Amino acid sequence: MQHHPARLIARKRDGHELSAGEIQDLVGGVVDGTLGEAQLGAFLMAVCCNGMSPQETTALTLAMRDSGRVLRHAQVAKPKIDKHSTGGVGDKVSLLLAPLVAAAGVAVPMVSGRGLGHTGGTIDKLAALPGYRTDLSPERFGEVLDQCGYAMMAPSAELAPADRRMYATRDVSGTVESIPLITSSILAKKLAEGIDGLVMDVKCGRAAFLPAADDATALMESLCAVGSAAGIRMAALRTDMDHPLGLALGNSLEVAEVLAALEGQCPDDLAELTLALGAEMLLLAGVASDADAARAVLQRLWRDGVARQVFRHNLELQGGDLRVLEDPEVLGRAPHVLAVEAQGTGFVADVDPLALGELVVDLGGGRRQPGDAIDPHVGIVLKHVLGDAVRTGDVLAFVHARTRGAAEAAVGRVLAAMPVGEERRKRGALVLQRLA
Amino acid sequence: MQHHPARLIARKRDGHELSAGEIQDLVGGVVDGTLGEAQLGAFLMAVCCNGMSPQETTALTLAMRDSGRVLRHAQVAKPKIDKHSTGGVGDKVSLLLAPLVAAAGVAVPMVSGRGLGHTGGTIDKLAALPGYRTDLSPERFGEVLDQCGYAMMAPSAELAPADRRMYATRDVSGTVESIPLITSSILAKKLAEGIDGLVMDVKCGRAAFLPAADDATALMESLCAVGSAAGIRMAALRTDMDHPLGLALGNSLEVAEVLAALEGQCPDDLAELTLALGAEMLLLAGVASDADAARAVLQRLWRDGVARQVFRHNLELQGGDLRVLEDPEVLGRAPHVLAVEAQGTGFVADVDPLALGELVVDLGGGRRQPGDAIDPHVGIVLKHVLGDAVRTGDVLAFVHARTRGAAEAAVGRVLAAMPVGEERRKRGALVLQRLA
Repeated sequence: MQHHPARLIARKRDGHELSAGEIQDLVGGVVDGTLGEAQLGAFLMAVCCNGMSPQETTALTLAMRDSGRVLRHAQVAKPKIDKHSTGGVGDKVSLLLAPLVAAAGVAVPMVSGRGLGHTGGTIDKLAALPGYRTDLSPERFGEVLDQCGYAMMAPSAELAPADRRMYATRDVSGTVESIPLITSSILAKKLAEGIDGLVMDVKCGRAAFLPAADDATALMESLCAVGSAAGIRMAALRTDMDHPLGLALGNSLEVAEVLAALEGQCPDDLAELTLALGAEMLLLAGVASDADAARAVLQRLWRDGVARQVFRHNLELQGGDLRVLEDPEVLGRAPHVLAVEAQGTGFVADVDPLALGELVVDLGGGRRQPGDAIDPHVGIVLKHVLGDAVRTGDVLAFVHARTRGAAEAAVGRVLAAMPVGEERRKRGALVLQRLA
Repeated sequence: MQHHPARLIARKRDGHELSAGEIQDLVGGVVDGTLGEAQLGAFLMAVCCNGMSPQETTALTLAMRDSGRVLRHAQVAKPKIDKHSTGGVGDKVSLLLAPLVAAAGVAVPMVSGRGLGHTGGTIDKLAALPGYRTDLSPERFGEVLDQCGYAMMAPSAELAPADRRMYATRDVSGTVESIPLITSSILAKKLAEGIDGLVMDVKCGRAAFLPAADDATALMESLCAVGSAAGIRMAALRTDMDHPLGLALGNSLEVAEVLAALEGQCPDDLAELTLALGAEMLLLAGVASDADAARAVLQRLWRDGVARQVFRHNLELQGGDLRVLEDPEVLGRAPHVLAVEAQGTGFVADVDPLALGELVVDLGGGRRQPGDAIDPHVGIVLKHVLGDAVRTGDVLAFVHARTRGAAEAAVGRVLAAMPVGEERRKRGALVLQRLA
């Protein structure tokens, strides 16, 4: 490193603004190992405590992007637009959105993450699709993108390697919750994918990574400012994560929900969010004049089965078992499925996404630690949502478990997460704010 | 660790106060290695940014003290009082003060540090005394203390091992400058020595570790509050480090100055600071009724050669070559000694301690990095101090160097550090503030 790391860190500690060159130096040290773990931990904490200017965050993002390969997809003439979400419970939007938007003539290069804690990850859901490969080379990723309009890839050591080390260090050192660090971590990886534009789905509510609305708004503003400064088109929606998205929670159960949705059977909230994000992507791509036109295009492509055809083509290219399209039972099934019955009559007064997300993890469907194995078949399928009228004995949900004991233990937790009361509550708006 | 480290670190990041149990848990992780380097770096930075309450700093200090052995010296009936300084240029007070205070019937168990950068360390000065051993076992340390009234020891891995790791991490991660971390680092080691009281010499001025008066005052207040809470008697002086202390800079040259001082030839500032700190030690020990009485006792013990006798006894017990008392040439001498002559007539307008301290390091007499070897013989001996009238050709100082080239290169730097001007400036007070 050109500068003495302790001096750069002390400058950030004292609230000074670092230059782009100084930030490049630090990120260089992250990649070549000359910045030690204690130095990295201290630097990240100094950023948590003192923040970063938009200029600093942009410099950090670009240095992290440039720490590895930056894909170009020169063979793909279409506009390349991706969507990224900060993570939620039951959020399988990417699986539905990518083929739908690709059907509208937009290329969607999607490098997705694995889940941690109550938040699921797209790569884990795709792993529940028999045969489906997400360990593509960057070259193959580009080919699949070119041939079917979208491609799905797990994080590669070649793209933004600085983020890999920084994220692992943040995870253990109490330095995850920082708008500049979250911004640069998301955007560095997305910029390395080779995109022209990005739509961000920033969740807020109980089960969101940033539950408070003002934190989520601050992240939206930071992402849009830094993404624009880095030369891509940006839009962001703040969306509700106070309740699960869709009805299925758990990897293969969520894939089954997506397969049904492609056939036209889609829970309202999942359809609504998919269309809202898809419309933003079409606008960023310049292939629709306004949001209403974009939604109309997407609805037609969905209804007419074009999205399903694109999904099938991608499945073929990425090695997935095509039989799932005809017979979702090919996905497999957990050995124990138990119905959870309402203990009273009234209205579903809550569907707690945090409690249900944690339950899916405990059933084996998520990770406590990075690297934990995942059981693709376990999870929960809701039969009712907030405000539904139910009677004693009605099925509120099904628990899918590996053992009888686990299924039985889950029943009480589902009942606690879905209380039945006398008052009828309605779910609020799904899209809470838009920034573009 | 009982608590999840990332959660404890995040609580400090968010400005919460940690409990004593939580702090003990973190320090336990420092010692047994379950707290990783990134976690330690992040925690230290969170403390730098958000501070610590006196209760937290006390809990940290006690946990660090208790991370290793805590000496008791049960066989020593006298009050046990130590002095510690935050470090300066030419500060050889400890070598003079320990025998003087021991001569007054106070036990002085002194674990000292090594120097780094422009700041010298007592252990390096003692290493310039042929044969003198500072690598004592705690048992031998107690024996020497009992037999001659004081003992000098290098930091031991057995005492406050948590500080050893924390200090090394702070040094590389830009987390040195924090009042709570400085307080706990100093006091944990001193409390482990087995003392009843401590006098702190907190330097301020250009060459001080904390140059600004308000920072130095804040450190004094923190040290006195936490030391008292930890059960020892405390006093602190804020003293001037805007100029070097005494005339000799460099390890064996400073020892020679101490040997001459014990014979009665002592620069005014060195004598003044030694008496001021010694009087505080006698007051803390309860062996003098007031400061004037304490000074009178010390001056008599000094003048009558009792301090020199105690020094001789200690030298004998710690293996030093007794011939140095009769012939300082036994200390050895650098091969090249060059006079620096004034280039004009007027008054010495400055004696820049930072520039001279850095010059001593460059001559080989100090460390850039921990572990660097030290040349005991090199350094600078001033012949004039601030405000002295000088004429062209008068000797301002002597440079002691390993090579002719190094000596010649040093001349210009000494001249730059000791400009001669028309205005007569006088040095201000040495003791700037007292807290007890």
